[in-house]
Amino acid sequence: MALNFMTAEEAAELINHGDNIGLSGFTPAGTAKAVTFALAKRAEAEHAKGHPFQVGIFTGASTGNSCDGVLSVAKAIRYRAPYTTNKDFRKAVNNGEISYNDIHLSQMAQELRYGFLGKVNMAIIEACEVTEDGKIYLTAAGGISPTVCRLADKIVVELNSAHSKESIGMHDVYEPLDPPYRREIPVFKPNDRIGKPYVEVDPKKIVGVVKTDWPDEARSFTSPDPVTDQIGQNIANFLVSDMKKGIIPKSFLPVQSGVGNIANAVLGALGSSQDIPAFNVYTEVLQDAVIDLIRKERVKFGSCCSLTVTNDCLNSVYDDMKFFKDKLIIRQSEVSNNPEVIRRLGVISINTAIEADIYGNINSTHIMGTKMMNGIGGSGDFTRPAYISIFTTPSTAKDGKISTIVPLVAHTDHTEHDVNIIVTEYGVADLRGKGPKERAIEVIEKCAHPDYRPILREYLSYTDGKSQTPHFMKGALALHDTFIKTGDMRNIDWSKYLD
Amino acid sequence: MALNFMTAEEAAELINHGDNIGLSGFTPAGTAKAVTFALAKRAEAEHAKGHPFQVGIFTGASTGNSCDGVLSVAKAIRYRAPYTTNKDFRKAVNNGEISYNDIHLSQMAQELRYGFLGKVNMAIIEACEVTEDGKIYLTAAGGISPTVCRLADKIVVELNSAHSKESIGMHDVYEPLDPPYRREIPVFKPNDRIGKPYVEVDPKKIVGVVKTDWPDEARSFTSPDPVTDQIGQNIANFLVSDMKKGIIPKSFLPVQSGVGNIANAVLGALGSSQDIPAFNVYTEVLQDAVIDLIRKERVKFGSCCSLTVTNDCLNSVYDDMKFFKDKLIIRQSEVSNNPEVIRRLGVISINTAIEADIYGNINSTHIMGTKMMNGIGGSGDFTRPAYISIFTTPSTAKDGKISTIVPLVAHTDHTEHDVNIIVTEYGVADLRGKGPKERAIEVIEKCAHPDYRPILREYLSYTDGKSQTPHFMKGALALHDTFIKTGDMRNIDWSKYLD
Repeated sequence: MALNFMTAEEAAELINHGDNIGLSGFTPAGTAKAVTFALAKRAEAEHAKGHPFQVGIFTGASTGNSCDGVLSVAKAIRYRAPYTTNKDFRKAVNNGEISYNDIHLSQMAQELRYGFLGKVNMAIIEACEVTEDGKIYLTAAGGISPTVCRLADKIVVELNSAHSKESIGMHDVYEPLDPPYRREIPVFKPNDRIGKPYVEVDPKKIVGVVKTDWPDEARSFTSPDPVTDQIGQNIANFLVSDMKKGIIPKSFLPVQSGVGNIANAVLGALGSSQDIPAFNVYTEVLQDAVIDLIRKERVKFGSCCSLTVTNDCLNSVYDDMKFFKDKLIIRQSEVSNNPEVIRRLGVISINTAIEADIYGNINSTHIMGTKMMNGIGGSGDFTRPAYISIFTTPSTAKDGKISTIVPLVAHTDHTEHDVNIIVTEYGVADLRGKGPKERAIEVIEKCAHPDYRPILREYLSYTDGKSQTPHFMKGALALHDTFIKTGDMRNIDWSKYLD
Repeated sequence: MALNFMTAEEAAELINHGDNIGLSGFTPAGTAKAVTFALAKRAEAEHAKGHPFQVGIFTGASTGNSCDGVLSVAKAIRYRAPYTTNKDFRKAVNNGEISYNDIHLSQMAQELRYGFLGKVNMAIIEACEVTEDGKIYLTAAGGISPTVCRLADKIVVELNSAHSKESIGMHDVYEPLDPPYRREIPVFKPNDRIGKPYVEVDPKKIVGVVKTDWPDEARSFTSPDPVTDQIGQNIANFLVSDMKKGIIPKSFLPVQSGVGNIANAVLGALGSSQDIPAFNVYTEVLQDAVIDLIRKERVKFGSCCSLTVTNDCLNSVYDDMKFFKDKLIIRQSEVSNNPEVIRRLGVISINTAIEADIYGNINSTHIMGTKMMNGIGGSGDFTRPAYISIFTTPSTAKDGKISTIVPLVAHTDHTEHDVNIIVTEYGVADLRGKGPKERAIEVIEKCAHPDYRPILREYLSYTDGKSQTPHFMKGALALHDTFIKTGDMRNIDWSKYLD
């Protein structure tokens, strides 16, 4: 069956108001770009004519500006899951314009299959190669591609020459059966291959192929600074200490590290530690730092859902596939983030918090309890089943006006039951084996910024100090209330909350 | 090697101040009784002499009065994990006397093995049979017995004649290897057997066998009432509707149902539904209702961690083992509650909340945010990996003085990311595929008590109504603050929280 080449605009014409579209990709890596960009133009034209035009968007994780960005500005998104990072999307979401469903990334594909999220009308899949018999070779990310291809009525392929065909072979495409027929996810080592190198679809469903040459829109992160470097060093020291105690096996364990400059600093510190042997990475998003550590033979193998690296880095990997072929694998988010596999492998998870509370709860998503930042992403998938779960945060934000250590987080994404370790530039709070009151002392004295320690101790002095989790309800969120009203948590006046 | 029979008092003498003891059992079923009872006496005697005497206690879940009860009264517990239900324990914990670490039950055994919780000095294991070559046959619960036996220096067996030897064969004793050597937990159907019928230990470690005749101290629950019956009916109707939509397969899926009278009412409703085929139960605590449904052939198979049934019911099972042999299995909590298995099987989880918030977060543990009720138990193990996760609660407590639907839960045990369905006697809130603002309307209008709906709508009117999760920080916990200060949430005066 011959492939039907068309323009992005023609493909966008195949999408109707009210449709749900399912995209390849995970982060801006490997996601659809040209058709979604054209779709935004189409939505604007329809809106100009007074016609309603909005779609639901299902993805592996976030996308780039050519999807979430332009579609948000065009007011073309009705519903979105499971994760985003785009600033225009964030603005629209916190302005009440989009129904945003913040879902654990490992669960996205199965929630679609189970029928929780409605029909998938069209899948838009970025590929470096597609064959007439329905083999789609993905680019820099695994995401939920096989699922949206299977569920969708129609598939459009973005054949993107910015991705080398050298990436063929890096993918391990696997989709589990659903209950009651599901079996184990047979990954027992980070480098186990369990699937095929391509997505296999019914070729009749491929309604169009759009040729593009559009590089991934990976974000660049700010460089490490003394605070992130210190956080990285604190983590490396802590893990070495746990290894010496026999808690972590001498052969070490696979590491998951979140996205951003703290994650890069942590990997840098682990990579340069003399006491940590070369290790495996089992993560969702693989960044430049890991590619670098693979080259240095400090990381033995990298399993991920996406190569969210700079385009220079990506091309250097494509150019050196002979070296990287047996050192990298790209999986579906349902596998990379699968709690079954993560618990089995004993992954050490390291994720960034927006704020942590003194009892060990973590807010990963909401600024001051109300405004969405990005979403929970894969942090829940990794944290609960982790061998050791670690959260990092600089002790303050906004030049000290915000303490990231608070009495009670204003939104809870990870509960006290799931959090083992909290790390700031000031130190490491080890919550394992401790009751809440012991944790409060540990977190305040080890992690809080010195300016905020007296404030947090004073908070505790107003509680009964005895209950399982001492709080006083009117004051539990008083630091947040103070920041909202005065712009600086240090202006806290506890007497306003005591009556 | 001959068994060394001794009295409970003699066994208690082998425990030292500062020791950690690991117990068999899960709930009061199958737990140690005589030695812990004697230990409380010993602690009291030591305290009378002015000597410090406290121990750490590791169990599968809760225990009975002869353990947590008497030891709390004797002030003999320093540290306790992972769960309890005893009223004297609760009082002591909320009086700041015990360090209580509230852990997901499936994680308890591995946290001990990983070394997070310190040494296990002695294991005390209730058995219906023990052999000279180190085979221990458990009674009514799986719990963490093989792990504490392997980790402990010394093992004491309570050979309890109140449990029939007929229970031999019901157990499937399995302990996984730890990372990096762990394999899949090979349970693919609720009735798969993967282990041995006994715990195998080094016989040299069995320092004593204490003969007892001490029935399980299972709690009795209040009977179903119109509210719990209506909740059960609402769930049955909802599941039938999901089956008709094709979301739940026609063959149905295994059910987990929490502990207590709501759980019993739910099982009653599922059992008597004409539209639900005979189903499997894959749960942690199996109560009388399931035994009854097995007899009626409405439940095909029951997999559990404990038979927490009345003693009459337990004896009736022991007396009818020919019938029950291929219909019941008792597993370790690490298997019964394992998220890997629960996600694979597609278990429908049904658990009870203390309170739920309008955005879908659940408090399972803390009364008014500070006082521990019982603990998270297995609700987290089941909720996140569930095919569909359901929480139940009557819409009010304390004769209407408390709304169990609040703006923000005062303690979060299950986050918005994990909760699919909330059910009260008023209806079913389906949160799947909805953003937070849509969920708020769904929860208020379907689940809240009519007296509280205007109060909750008024709360929303003070938020910006636009952010991803609209709250105002000073008022988010105002209903709790009002209850604490006035004894009735209906006395809420929002103006006190607006400034």
